[in-house]
Amino acid sequence: MSFIPYSHHYQRIRDQLASDIAQGASQADEKLPSEREMIERFGCTRVTLRQALQQLEAEGLVYRENRRGWFVCPSRIRYDPTRISGFMEYVSAQGRTPRTECLLAERRPAGDWLAQRMGLASADEPVFFLQRRRWIDRRPVLLEYNVLLASWCPGLLDIDLNTSLTRVLREHFARVQSRCKLEMHIGTVNEEQAELLQLSPGASSIHLERLNFGEENQIVEFDQEFWRPDALSIVMETRPPEMK
Amino acid sequence: MSFIPYSHHYQRIRDQLASDIAQGASQADEKLPSEREMIERFGCTRVTLRQALQQLEAEGLVYRENRRGWFVCPSRIRYDPTRISGFMEYVSAQGRTPRTECLLAERRPAGDWLAQRMGLASADEPVFFLQRRRWIDRRPVLLEYNVLLASWCPGLLDIDLNTSLTRVLREHFARVQSRCKLEMHIGTVNEEQAELLQLSPGASSIHLERLNFGEENQIVEFDQEFWRPDALSIVMETRPPEMK
Repeated sequence: MSFIPYSHHYQRIRDQLASDIAQGASQADEKLPSEREMIERFGCTRVTLRQALQQLEAEGLVYRENRRGWFVCPSRIRYDPTRISGFMEYVSAQGRTPRTECLLAERRPAGDWLAQRMGLASADEPVFFLQRRRWIDRRPVLLEYNVLLASWCPGLLDIDLNTSLTRVLREHFARVQSRCKLEMHIGTVNEEQAELLQLSPGASSIHLERLNFGEENQIVEFDQEFWRPDALSIVMETRPPEMK
Repeated sequence: MSFIPYSHHYQRIRDQLASDIAQGASQADEKLPSEREMIERFGCTRVTLRQALQQLEAEGLVYRENRRGWFVCPSRIRYDPTRISGFMEYVSAQGRTPRTECLLAERRPAGDWLAQRMGLASADEPVFFLQRRRWIDRRPVLLEYNVLLASWCPGLLDIDLNTSLTRVLREHFARVQSRCKLEMHIGTVNEEQAELLQLSPGASSIHLERLNFGEENQIVEFDQEFWRPDALSIVMETRPPEMK
């Protein structure tokens, strides 16, 4: 953002720190020098230093741990929603280590809200409800709630779900999804979600909802994702469908 | 989110308020009853009421104005990044009133950072730098910084820019963009941006960056957008490019 036309003193300190990080002087998850050391180095006030650090935090370059100081953010995982590819796949492809932890898996009736959402004939239609937490390297970054039509993948609960659901569906049920409707916005996390993602309650997060369609264009899965705000970057390339 | 398996007391209050909003008992930008009135109505404590309201805030259904109370959120504008369509267009198409306010428009050399970003041969290459604020109905929702290659649209600064840039480029320069690379993440706003968007400094916002390509596949524009967190919903439909 260095082209934005105001250049306060903190901006120069921000530039210097950002350049240190870019040049690898500090690595991901490494602690920055203490605030006292940085104040000495830059010959600035604590207020100015904090402005620079908050600017870097805003840009997702550093994060703060209470009482422990400032750390360099691991880079955000790049996710392209125009490609249907699972978490385990795209995280590995970026040289990081994905892990999936299944917290809950049960069968239950859909209920009114989901029946309406998924266009089911009856609220009694059985669905599998999964709650999973997903990790990148040593950090939990994502909570995922999946609701699947039980009739589409019977026996799902007998399978180890600490892995890629896409692969389980393909390998055990020969199921693939044909298309997906996606909605994404900023929301916050509740207490339980905050705890699971090591965030403060009320912290911002990226909410993602998907309606997944099966082979006959029927809705087969509804899912909701809650991402740590500093873990995800959405990237895509678009072309105009018609040139106006 | 009513299928998530915990049903504290605040969840029932949340459901009741959400249903009031859905049924139109309270309209967009209308004030909810005072906390005291709601406490009386639900026979709950202030803590429980606040949990319910914070849950609704997290879902983007209500917002708080300091000392004034709780209000119903206008619905988020739906933006489909896979379609290239301008702000003025997609906001109007949703029955809302868009407005563009040009805050700054000047010619300057690109500088090192932008030259690298835009793949320019020289840091002296002249660009037009625009800063615009965009409104939906009566709320400022978006700050936009556009950097355009001056050689691609000479004379741009002589034109009224309080409007759609897409249209100006098409009508005055017969210019259209061929494709666009887009990156999106959560960041926060700095003091100046907070002021312009009526947010607190450090509030979360949606950061969007685009590299726009011209007719000969050259980069012609770089832009950055900062959205109010509660104003935007990203929607799209995807199909797998290959079925695996």
